[in-house]
Amino acid sequence: MIFELTILGCSSAIPIHNRFMSSQVLNVHGRLFLIDCAEGTQIRLAEYKISKNKIENILISHLHGDHIFGLPGLIGSMSMLGRTKPLDVYGPEGIESFLNNAFEISESFIGFELNIHVVRHSKYTKIIENEKVIVYSFPLKHRIAAVGYKIVEKDRLRNINPEMIEKYNLSYNQIQAAKYGNDINLTGGEVLKNADLTFSPKRKRSFAYCSDTIYDESIVPVVKKVDLLYHEATYMEHLKDKAKERFHSTTVDAAKIAQQAEVGKLIIGHYSSRYKDLNALLQEAKGVFERTELAIDGKRFTVKIPDNE
Amino acid sequence: MIFELTILGCSSAIPIHNRFMSSQVLNVHGRLFLIDCAEGTQIRLAEYKISKNKIENILISHLHGDHIFGLPGLIGSMSMLGRTKPLDVYGPEGIESFLNNAFEISESFIGFELNIHVVRHSKYTKIIENEKVIVYSFPLKHRIAAVGYKIVEKDRLRNINPEMIEKYNLSYNQIQAAKYGNDINLTGGEVLKNADLTFSPKRKRSFAYCSDTIYDESIVPVVKKVDLLYHEATYMEHLKDKAKERFHSTTVDAAKIAQQAEVGKLIIGHYSSRYKDLNALLQEAKGVFERTELAIDGKRFTVKIPDNE
Repeated sequence: MIFELTILGCSSAIPIHNRFMSSQVLNVHGRLFLIDCAEGTQIRLAEYKISKNKIENILISHLHGDHIFGLPGLIGSMSMLGRTKPLDVYGPEGIESFLNNAFEISESFIGFELNIHVVRHSKYTKIIENEKVIVYSFPLKHRIAAVGYKIVEKDRLRNINPEMIEKYNLSYNQIQAAKYGNDINLTGGEVLKNADLTFSPKRKRSFAYCSDTIYDESIVPVVKKVDLLYHEATYMEHLKDKAKERFHSTTVDAAKIAQQAEVGKLIIGHYSSRYKDLNALLQEAKGVFERTELAIDGKRFTVKIPDNE
Repeated sequence: MIFELTILGCSSAIPIHNRFMSSQVLNVHGRLFLIDCAEGTQIRLAEYKISKNKIENILISHLHGDHIFGLPGLIGSMSMLGRTKPLDVYGPEGIESFLNNAFEISESFIGFELNIHVVRHSKYTKIIENEKVIVYSFPLKHRIAAVGYKIVEKDRLRNINPEMIEKYNLSYNQIQAAKYGNDINLTGGEVLKNADLTFSPKRKRSFAYCSDTIYDESIVPVVKKVDLLYHEATYMEHLKDKAKERFHSTTVDAAKIAQQAEVGKLIIGHYSSRYKDLNALLQEAKGVFERTELAIDGKRFTVKIPDNE
């Protein structure tokens, strides 16, 4: 079952150096979460052959233009391409007014159910739960109301040992019961312990998105031990005063959060236009947290759990 | 003096087949007119190394999303990049509300004078006149209020014969007077006829933009004999009923307008997403009007006047 992040844009503020602005897609078991939606997001989706129709939820971190100006066009295109299934959009207060005004002025017809949810930006909150994942929003500290998102796989069922099915000729209903962790009473009175019938499911994979934000240690417990952490790193450390003044983070800030949270991998992005070559940013972050990688438009990060975990 | 059109996007409705949506730039003597501004316009400008700062006027044909959704991001970027000189945006009623809402929600700060002008869509109107050009808007017939634009070089001054300057030792003021078409009275009483002093200026170059529109012969006198006519050709002739129903044109429609208006060159664009290969559209239009070319993202059309015209 796939758990994969694709970067659609990694530039802050303006598109430059062949980098589009903030947007990425998380694919969890074939269901897509779009996270932020800068201008050009639908262009990158087409370019990377990612189906707009598989996007079920759009999570918006905050309402700065470089995170939302692709929304009206993307949603309009979904409708023109014949989408009928509902779409849920989450974001801070104001998102509804922005979309409604754009659709009204442009006389866009949206031919499917569009549900816009305002997320509370002051509190860690469960915003989505379905059979595959749980999604949480949590407060970030930026110039305007901003939230991060954490997406965690749901508890998986236990894996049944196929040899035991054959040995005891287990029925479908018995197999299901075992997958849910139950012991099985055989007709002869024998009790099969669940631990002898099944293997533990692999651990749950998780991703967290923190952009835009100033360095803020209150994030640490929320993103503790996620497999992938995307944390903005607009500037290098030499500009830490500018970062603070503008409520952004440096490479070192991002790496310190990753280190304290003991994440599996840190992905930095949201680069200032002043950095054409990103290698110095990567090296600076790796100096603090070795398992760092650069977000680059089109780059994919897949989380695979080894069999022994 | 340059007179050159660059196509930034030529797709209708959605970005597809590596085509962005409607936007193009006309460079008249180094001053840039941006015509329509679909999502991704600022990305194409960066890609084609066209300076956003040289754009003095933005002309919007109508408020459908595939013609305006790049505006808030472009204008925001201009400001972030330190623009100080004014920008004038022209378009149908509603353009101001769209921009103001987008800027307000995204807390965008625009650090220069932004003048938004509502154009009347019912009448041929002169909307801009400066020392280089005159710009007219004129009504198009589309599902919503839409206008075309015609950009014409201003009358140029006459070219003075350098040999005559030397022969008669003409002063700066005398030269200027001659350039404006006057005869020159020499101090000895002799009169130099203007026709002997100067050459006729080359003829004025012109460009017209007609998108989106149904086939409409009332356009013909307005775009009569322009050097370049951009006319939408969303569909091929086999879909002429669909074109009519949706207030769009076919390749043949565009070519018939070009033919009747005796234009120098027809450029077709605004292609439906169903056409991946555009050669059939080109051939169909050329069947009616030979001097037709395809709009393609990044393609440039330069108008040069031969010395004998």
